[in-house]
Amino acid sequence: MKSGTAPLEPPLKHYLQFKDFSAEEYAYLFERAAVIKRRFKNFEKYTPLVDRTLAMIFEKASTRTRVSFEAGMYQMGGSVVHLTTGDSQLGRAEPVEDSARVISRMVDLVMIRTYEQAKLEGFAAHSRVPVINGLTDEYHPCQILADVFTFIEHRGPIEGKTVAWVGDGNNMANTWLQAAEILGFTVHLSTPGGYEVDQAVAGISNRACYKLFKNPREACRGAHLVTTDVWTSMGFEAESATRQQAFADWCVDADMMSAARPDALFMHCLPAHRGEEVAADVIDGPQSVVWDEAENRMHAQKALMEYLLLGRIG
Amino acid sequence: MKSGTAPLEPPLKHYLQFKDFSAEEYAYLFERAAVIKRRFKNFEKYTPLVDRTLAMIFEKASTRTRVSFEAGMYQMGGSVVHLTTGDSQLGRAEPVEDSARVISRMVDLVMIRTYEQAKLEGFAAHSRVPVINGLTDEYHPCQILADVFTFIEHRGPIEGKTVAWVGDGNNMANTWLQAAEILGFTVHLSTPGGYEVDQAVAGISNRACYKLFKNPREACRGAHLVTTDVWTSMGFEAESATRQQAFADWCVDADMMSAARPDALFMHCLPAHRGEEVAADVIDGPQSVVWDEAENRMHAQKALMEYLLLGRIG
Amino acid sequence: MKSGTAPLEPPLKHYLQFKDFSAEEYAYLFERAAVIKRRFKNFEKYTPLVDRTLAMIFEKASTRTRVSFEAGMYQMGGSVVHLTTGDSQLGRAEPVEDSARVISRMVDLVMIRTYEQAKLEGFAAHSRVPVINGLTDEYHPCQILADVFTFIEHRGPIEGKTVAWVGDGNNMANTWLQAAEILGFTVHLSTPGGYEVDQAVAGISNRACYKLFKNPREACRGAHLVTTDVWTSMGFEAESATRQQAFADWCVDADMMSAARPDALFMHCLPAHRGEEVAADVIDGPQSVVWDEAENRMHAQKALMEYLLLGRIG
Repeated sequence: MKSGTAPLEPPLKHYLQFKDFSAEEYAYLFERAAVIKRRFKNFEKYTPLVDRTLAMIFEKASTRTRVSFEAGMYQMGGSVVHLTTGDSQLGRAEPVEDSARVISRMVDLVMIRTYEQAKLEGFAAHSRVPVINGLTDEYHPCQILADVFTFIEHRGPIEGKTVAWVGDGNNMANTWLQAAEILGFTVHLSTPGGYEVDQAVAGISNRACYKLFKNPREACRGAHLVTTDVWTSMGFEAESATRQQAFADWCVDADMMSAARPDALFMHCLPAHRGEEVAADVIDGPQSVVWDEAENRMHAQKALMEYLLLGRIG
Repeated sequence: MKSGTAPLEPPLKHYLQFKDFSAEEYAYLFERAAVIKRRFKNFEKYTPLVDRTLAMIFEKASTRTRVSFEAGMYQMGGSVVHLTTGDSQLGRAEPVEDSARVISRMVDLVMIRTYEQAKLEGFAAHSRVPVINGLTDEYHPCQILADVFTFIEHRGPIEGKTVAWVGDGNNMANTWLQAAEILGFTVHLSTPGGYEVDQAVAGISNRACYKLFKNPREACRGAHLVTTDVWTSMGFEAESATRQQAFADWCVDADMMSAARPDALFMHCLPAHRGEEVAADVIDGPQSVVWDEAENRMHAQKALMEYLLLGRIG
Repeated sequence: MKSGTAPLEPPLKHYLQFKDFSAEEYAYLFERAAVIKRRFKNFEKYTPLVDRTLAMIFEKASTRTRVSFEAGMYQMGGSVVHLTTGDSQLGRAEPVEDSARVISRMVDLVMIRTYEQAKLEGFAAHSRVPVINGLTDEYHPCQILADVFTFIEHRGPIEGKTVAWVGDGNNMANTWLQAAEILGFTVHLSTPGGYEVDQAVAGISNRACYKLFKNPREACRGAHLVTTDVWTSMGFEAESATRQQAFADWCVDADMMSAARPDALFMHCLPAHRGEEVAADVIDGPQSVVWDEAENRMHAQKALMEYLLLGRIG
């Protein structure tokens, strides 16, 4: 928006997949997220986005994504327009390209949670302002941004480490694979038959960054981080009964955690179903960092928004 | 949120029932509400909550509660994240405790309008930040806070006075009883048979602070304030026809007002159904202070939010 | 709100129809919109509405109106409470007059998108603060405000010019007629039989400001601006099939544009249905200014809100 050539504006950049940024950019973002988080904890006012407006477009319900982006934007001095499907179903009343042209003339930044990655990319292609993927069927880069930041906070660099993904070969799994390729760690992937990651969707070129395991306990062996997701993600509710059966052995319980390193962390993007994909004594136990992880969505996304709108600071 | 030990944060306190505060705390709040209202009327900027975010969670629709909290927060420099059931149905996608843990890491204050008081209390028990009751089936403390403030504005101290409650033994009635006990006034309570206050729910220990009347006109005798509510509150629509019959004699009309003191005020938390619980010539007449009462929701709640977030000023 | 007599408050004025303002007031508004737009494009902070809150009440869905008002208010330092039908259906839970009394005690400005103009006017009659028509079945003054501003930006004064309206005799058409009468231009109006403008609704007294044409191509002859709208506006979806037939010859295509002046502009309030009311090569072609027009909603409305809240600047 504004004049695309204003001296204050960095070159237009979107965040549609994890692989949109380089390892070097991530190193910068994790450092900024730590600075921003520390200031927040110390009640130091930091409002670089005064006068900037974020439009959030939700075609799927959300709590965490909603609150983390919105509160984060307010803390940085900015404003938020929150559009739900009722207000604006992308591509229904008008082509998604037209919505992009109009909305991106009025706001400074757009976050979209939708179903198809193609719709998000169609919007971005016609937007004058940066577009952020707030979850699609294919990817969830903001969550993995927060997860890696949380890992680093607790354990230091993730390079060379092992992350066990136990469960659905979904948007989270795809994004973990992209992160592994870019940041140089390994993913141990164990999904039930029929729920494998689609390697074309994951879209990575380095086959060495992940290993497949039939047995989820084997996947956890030696892992520095064990992570999972609900058996039935939003949009797949009709398959719920079938999935309950297929995923029965993919519950992260104390036994599975004991296969991982003794200092392994447990993460979950929430909401969690205790007794299904994770046992209560794991998610509520000492290895779990799920509440830090949830909070870090906000800090990591603040760093992301600052970077997209202002470029590198200092 | 932030660090629980920051010097700026007062000790964690919630406002879940009227009896959560002492008479002395209420005296402070009414004084602050008057100061805050005067500044607002004089266009004096007063923004002590810059950088603070309120999350509002609505499981029931609302106009007054919504606008009064949201506009009030903006006027004090703060921000609001507005979550409706569609965005986040407490306790559906995840246990209410998990929602509390996550949301209270990202915002500074939470207001909840829900059905069961137990859900509100479950949230508060796991929240790092203050939680405000924005209406439950059991209590409506913010409304009575505004009502007592409005009474004081028009008539001075409420101590020793008489308030007539004519109608449903609902959340408003329960809260009036708590207020009477704490602030030292008397409630004359007249409800149709079958719609009595549940004394266990009202939760007061001093039986002397209220008197029951079969005849609503008798309840009004000597009252300094007559107040009522719709016959069918939200959530009870199915009982509407039955209630129309049962409540037929519980209409506050000119005759009933004439039983009260000549200078008695009339209040109603709105929306009102003229010709049902109140006659048009009462609510639109000279004794009615319902518009001041509605406006005072905002001023009283601003004082409440200031107190919960910053403690006593000066 | 506040005290109606505060020195900062201009006299109470609403914007319910285009004819609520004089030519002289419009000249002022178009000038202010240009100033405000230039500042925005240059990243000059301009926040005269700090401490002011706009309530937006939507009974019909909206993207453009929503984002343009909300982002515009934020850019000027103000805040927004966004109420949808779910939160507050005007006139359902309580008479619209009561909603007006309550809401206008808490906010500084109200924008309403509803069906009946009468409901909007009922609200305004009981509001203490300015009320803006954000679209009714009868009028859409904010859109025409933006359209005329866009015309002036591209072509200079609109006085004495010719605007061709091709299509439905709807709220847009009614408002163009009011604008023509006040600002001194001519509307060439061509609507299918049965979809004529209702002259009583349009509410203009000067029959000389418009001409009716059976043939839409004839209406375009000599026009400086050709403009249209979807065949089926919100609320008329049931008539869609009938309308498709009736409007078949009212498509603004290259042939129709060739009847207008060579430098004629094309406008559309969006969303557009390419291949129905407008051909893709027109809306996406060089004469189309629809994206500027959409963006100008925001700038023009910022000038409008500034004027209603602060009166004339300087």
